[in-house]
Amino acid sequence: MKKMAVLFLALQMIVSAQGPERGLVGFRGESLAREQKLESGLDGLFQRQGQQEWMKRMTAAPHHVGSPASRAVAEFMAEQFRAWGYETTIETFYPLFPTPRVRVLEMTAPERFTAKLEEPAVEGDATSGIKAGNLPVYNAYSIDGDVSGELVYVNYGVPADYQRLKEMGVDVKGKIVIARYGGSWRGIKPKVAAENGAVGCIIYSDPSGDGYFQGDVYPKGGYRPADSAQRGSVMDMPVYPGDPLTPGVGATDAKRTPDPKQAQTVTKIPVLPISYGDATPLLRALGGRVAPEAWRGALPFTYHVGPGPAKVHLKLEFDWKLAPAHNVVARMKGSEKPDEWVLRGNHHDGWNFGAADPISGMVAVMEEARVLGELAKKGWRPKRTVVFLGWDGEEPALLGSTEWAEQHAAELQKHAVVYINSDSTSRGFLSAAGTAGLEKLVAQAGRDVTDPQTRASTLERWSARRKVNGQADELRLGALGSGSDYTVFLHHLGIPSLNFGFGGEDSYGVYHSNYDSYDHFVRFVDPDFQYTLATAQVGARMVLRLANADALPVQAAPVARQVSQWTKEVMELAEKMRKETQKRNEMIRAGAFKLAADPRLHDVLPEVEGEVPYLNFAPLENAAARLERAAKLVDQVDVAALPAEKAAKFEEAMRVAEQRLLREEGLPRRPWFKHVLHAPGFYTGYGVKTLPGVREAIEQRNWKEAEEQIGKTGATINGYAEWLEKAAMEASGR
Amino acid sequence: MKKMAVLFLALQMIVSAQGPERGLVGFRGESLAREQKLESGLDGLFQRQGQQEWMKRMTAAPHHVGSPASRAVAEFMAEQFRAWGYETTIETFYPLFPTPRVRVLEMTAPERFTAKLEEPAVEGDATSGIKAGNLPVYNAYSIDGDVSGELVYVNYGVPADYQRLKEMGVDVKGKIVIARYGGSWRGIKPKVAAENGAVGCIIYSDPSGDGYFQGDVYPKGGYRPADSAQRGSVMDMPVYPGDPLTPGVGATDAKRTPDPKQAQTVTKIPVLPISYGDATPLLRALGGRVAPEAWRGALPFTYHVGPGPAKVHLKLEFDWKLAPAHNVVARMKGSEKPDEWVLRGNHHDGWNFGAADPISGMVAVMEEARVLGELAKKGWRPKRTVVFLGWDGEEPALLGSTEWAEQHAAELQKHAVVYINSDSTSRGFLSAAGTAGLEKLVAQAGRDVTDPQTRASTLERWSARRKVNGQADELRLGALGSGSDYTVFLHHLGIPSLNFGFGGEDSYGVYHSNYDSYDHFVRFVDPDFQYTLATAQVGARMVLRLANADALPVQAAPVARQVSQWTKEVMELAEKMRKETQKRNEMIRAGAFKLAADPRLHDVLPEVEGEVPYLNFAPLENAAARLERAAKLVDQVDVAALPAEKAAKFEEAMRVAEQRLLREEGLPRRPWFKHVLHAPGFYTGYGVKTLPGVREAIEQRNWKEAEEQIGKTGATINGYAEWLEKAAMEASGR
Repeated sequence: MKKMAVLFLALQMIVSAQGPERGLVGFRGESLAREQKLESGLDGLFQRQGQQEWMKRMTAAPHHVGSPASRAVAEFMAEQFRAWGYETTIETFYPLFPTPRVRVLEMTAPERFTAKLEEPAVEGDATSGIKAGNLPVYNAYSIDGDVSGELVYVNYGVPADYQRLKEMGVDVKGKIVIARYGGSWRGIKPKVAAENGAVGCIIYSDPSGDGYFQGDVYPKGGYRPADSAQRGSVMDMPVYPGDPLTPGVGATDAKRTPDPKQAQTVTKIPVLPISYGDATPLLRALGGRVAPEAWRGALPFTYHVGPGPAKVHLKLEFDWKLAPAHNVVARMKGSEKPDEWVLRGNHHDGWNFGAADPISGMVAVMEEARVLGELAKKGWRPKRTVVFLGWDGEEPALLGSTEWAEQHAAELQKHAVVYINSDSTSRGFLSAAGTAGLEKLVAQAGRDVTDPQTRASTLERWSARRKVNGQADELRLGALGSGSDYTVFLHHLGIPSLNFGFGGEDSYGVYHSNYDSYDHFVRFVDPDFQYTLATAQVGARMVLRLANADALPVQAAPVARQVSQWTKEVMELAEKMRKETQKRNEMIRAGAFKLAADPRLHDVLPEVEGEVPYLNFAPLENAAARLERAAKLVDQVDVAALPAEKAAKFEEAMRVAEQRLLREEGLPRRPWFKHVLHAPGFYTGYGVKTLPGVREAIEQRNWKEAEEQIGKTGATINGYAEWLEKAAMEASGR
Repeated sequence: MKKMAVLFLALQMIVSAQGPERGLVGFRGESLAREQKLESGLDGLFQRQGQQEWMKRMTAAPHHVGSPASRAVAEFMAEQFRAWGYETTIETFYPLFPTPRVRVLEMTAPERFTAKLEEPAVEGDATSGIKAGNLPVYNAYSIDGDVSGELVYVNYGVPADYQRLKEMGVDVKGKIVIARYGGSWRGIKPKVAAENGAVGCIIYSDPSGDGYFQGDVYPKGGYRPADSAQRGSVMDMPVYPGDPLTPGVGATDAKRTPDPKQAQTVTKIPVLPISYGDATPLLRALGGRVAPEAWRGALPFTYHVGPGPAKVHLKLEFDWKLAPAHNVVARMKGSEKPDEWVLRGNHHDGWNFGAADPISGMVAVMEEARVLGELAKKGWRPKRTVVFLGWDGEEPALLGSTEWAEQHAAELQKHAVVYINSDSTSRGFLSAAGTAGLEKLVAQAGRDVTDPQTRASTLERWSARRKVNGQADELRLGALGSGSDYTVFLHHLGIPSLNFGFGGEDSYGVYHSNYDSYDHFVRFVDPDFQYTLATAQVGARMVLRLANADALPVQAAPVARQVSQWTKEVMELAEKMRKETQKRNEMIRAGAFKLAADPRLHDVLPEVEGEVPYLNFAPLENAAARLERAAKLVDQVDVAALPAEKAAKFEEAMRVAEQRLLREEGLPRRPWFKHVLHAPGFYTGYGVKTLPGVREAIEQRNWKEAEEQIGKTGATINGYAEWLEKAAMEASGR
């Protein structure tokens, strides 16, 4: 016991700036004391047992969207929420969801080989042998196709890889490419392959990514065995997620006859994911140049890029049907501000058994709901309305959340305070990303939850790891791209959003495979459900505080800080590109590339590129400066000291302020994405681009569009700053 | 023809500072014109045919030191040199050279496996099946031993790796370690293993280093096949190279009875190199922690560190005999300054067939000698004496060169001007390292030799590659560590030295194996002998210019520049260590490492280290500053304008100036290494340490020794500066 006390003393020294302070953002005086009292007994209410039982039950059968198990899971959840005292409904939508009818991949030269495309049962994994309802390995929203051609290895299959292929004299036109997972979200791979003229795309899991290179493979360890492949969506979600046939509106009509040709976000070429067991004969048969060093994976042979002599035949047909997506919506009405909604959600559908992804996060959310229900049974009521959400169809295309939020867009923009998302969670360290104004809320929740392994706070552990890795240890929230259900709330509707979970000490290499199972989870992900519990403890605190706070615990200064930083970044990006282009062009003109190249390899030498013009960044710089000033003004407003009417008006202005960062016309070529500060990258997928209109135009060397976007983005940020100024002025009575 | 002209015009723009100038360092007026005339017909004299024939002949049988083939090679070379007009002798020494009697490596648990330790014949390689005289895979100067123990994987086996093992709670005491090649010179691996208490050491060639990860394996490509292993010396050469029984003197006595116990530089534990074929079952059987990511190679399983459950038995016995090392010494006497010797050498012994290493370099040196012989037959004579040298026994321990130079130490310090070494050479780019004062000589030779593939100059190609890689493109010579026969000349005797060759466009992964053969060379290293020819063209120019120059083409300013830079580096090193130690200690005291660690892994947490004191660097700084001034003075002396006697005196002073950088007592714990500016690293082997006394004391946190070495090194550099000042003063008559 004594040792522990000394440890705690020592630990206080490494608590970050947000740590030592014991207050709660948004609370003052009496309400602070009330909240602290409410939370003082909170941790005693959480239980691991229930989470374990729910997970076992919810992962017993393949429960993807449209499956009977998914419906059963939704109904089970709804039943629980009702028992805990929530007004609960299941809201069902009917998006397009293709499942495979035909999957053939064979090599026809230099020798014949037919890919297995099967994940066998493994010993000690009770569900891995279940065939009923099991979705085979495939990429959702691949187009139908029957193609043959020489094979080319394209590394991750991102634009830079095709640039490198071009330098090596390799053209993928009319060919089938094989890319490894990693380096981008998977949907980028067939998109870029098609842009470069390929007729088909294979994606495989190189053991360097999540196989034996990373650790022992399942069932000995938690990593991907030779015959396991990664399912997943390849829909062009950076254009818009959700039902491809109903962008911007809810897919409520179950009776439509879907025409997949109307689906803009389906891939242009057929695409199939395979295991490294299936990929080995294909890659081994490639000739041509040896792959650049950074392209080589962990398979035991020399990686070549081709094209050929390997030739492959890929045939895919899908059942293009509508599938019911069952969203669970559970409400606890607010006592004082019922029209302000705190939203907390997670998806419940998985690629088959989906234990870590998503049930680990789902059972955390359920435990939060159960605990709040317990409080309610003891007489407590949240000031604001709390809504727990269990999404269906996240895996194929964020279907459930997108359709629901599109359907309820007007209400949500009117009532929503914050949307908090989780997805997978596992043993390790707290991590969070999202709207920067919420960083204090997150830090304080982390501060107040004890790490189950070390008994330090989860914030202290987070901070210690950052320190040891030589990183800044003040909690800052990185911007969100895409990859889970916050997308529609943040990027389409302008609702402040968070995504959080734990991780980093798991052995998880079976993502989107049949082996993401209960048995795998309890051996390699979070054996004692300690971190599903910690997730619930952090989540519950954030929900409670958002629900009960006097003033919304959202600050403007962190957003202003980000905008200034990103403005600097895009300016530096242009400057860097200018210098590099100039230097490179000089070298090209001087023949340096020719002389440095190995003449036997016959490289295609780079050509002179257009120089980078100086851009007028002033609109962005001025907007960023104004926002810094405006943020100071609003953050200084003492809501508790305002007369009730003024306070309410101010709070209302603040609640919808984020929506001022939307532009109705959206981003170029993707009007669904309306937020000017961030979006999933057009060529990175999940990976975020900040100031996306400006940044992507620069990256694409589209100087005209860059100037336009600087103007538009600057104007929008200006509008946001003005909104804040006005709110602050009115609050202070000027 | 026209296109070519345009190309050349363009190329002039990328010629480095040393390029456009057409003069020759050390020549003026008439003698410059004479030299230019002499060289104008030079390139027409070089032939590839002879090099090809010599290589075929010299690589027909295993020709390691002590073998009949080595003697035959030496006699063949001597015969050639004589035919070309050189006074030629074979000088034979008798160093200790162990060869294997017993080699057993077996795994005894968890299953039995006996290592093959054999390189089979491969198709299309005429010599790979020759067994007669073939030296099996072994490490020369491993001690005899018969040891058993649990196996531990130690990555490269350098000190930092053992630090990491300690953090993982793994102790190698009483165990047998397996290290992969790379990360240091091989002799460091058993040395550090023994320091850490291991009882045996296995070194294997991971395919990530020179096997299939790098390119197709022999005979399909040029890289190492599964059963190939890397022979090589593991003698503690950073202490002293050459015969372990006669440090500092020539091993001239053939009749001694060698007592290997007297050999200080033999390893403390037995060590054996193996192939990745033999290593696979051993590594695959290891348990324990998964190896850190940077430790993982390209074998198709998860790398673990152990210890065990793999247990191995290693038994090695050697024949500890003296072997005759036949050095070929060929002289062409100088017409004007016969007592000034220009030395040019390469070794002729190989690990068995040794085509690339060393015959590629040896045939270049021979071609230089032949061409100078041709010139001599037409009536030309060098002003200074030229000595061509073919060393035996380089592979086991730089035996031939070290014993010869120790034997002739006094004469060499009196007469030698410069020693120029080559070793392997191959298709690609010029590279050179050595005494910085020779950089202009090297750059001008590179400028005047045409690259055989591009028809640009070899300097232009060098410069282009540097530019494309974003590096400075002015030719600077890096300092020499060890790894070839310049070692004794530079570090022990203080004779300005160079090492150069071509490379970078070969596919050479068969280093020190049976497959470094003629057949391999003509497919994967330098198919048309274009670069053995270019090597000869560069070498011949440097030899000719050194032999004929009015004044020695050695400058002082580049050395002064290096000393200033290295002084700054060691100061920054201490400062960096100070900050890191402080930061790390703070984190340790705050418990950050404990909180950041995965509790399930039971890491051994780092302990607080002594803080880094401020050191008095003033003696070094003052010496460096004085040297900068002195170098300016001597480089300004116009030798051609001096009266003959003064010029001769000045030149003599300059010729021996480098010896002023030696300290008689040598470096701490290795008195044989006397140069204060550079030495092979005590813990890196081949890798150079500059200002080694100071730098290594700091690295080892030996602050007292660091202060002492700063004083001593400063004093020595001061003495060198004083010598230069005096020479300059006397020349200018003051």
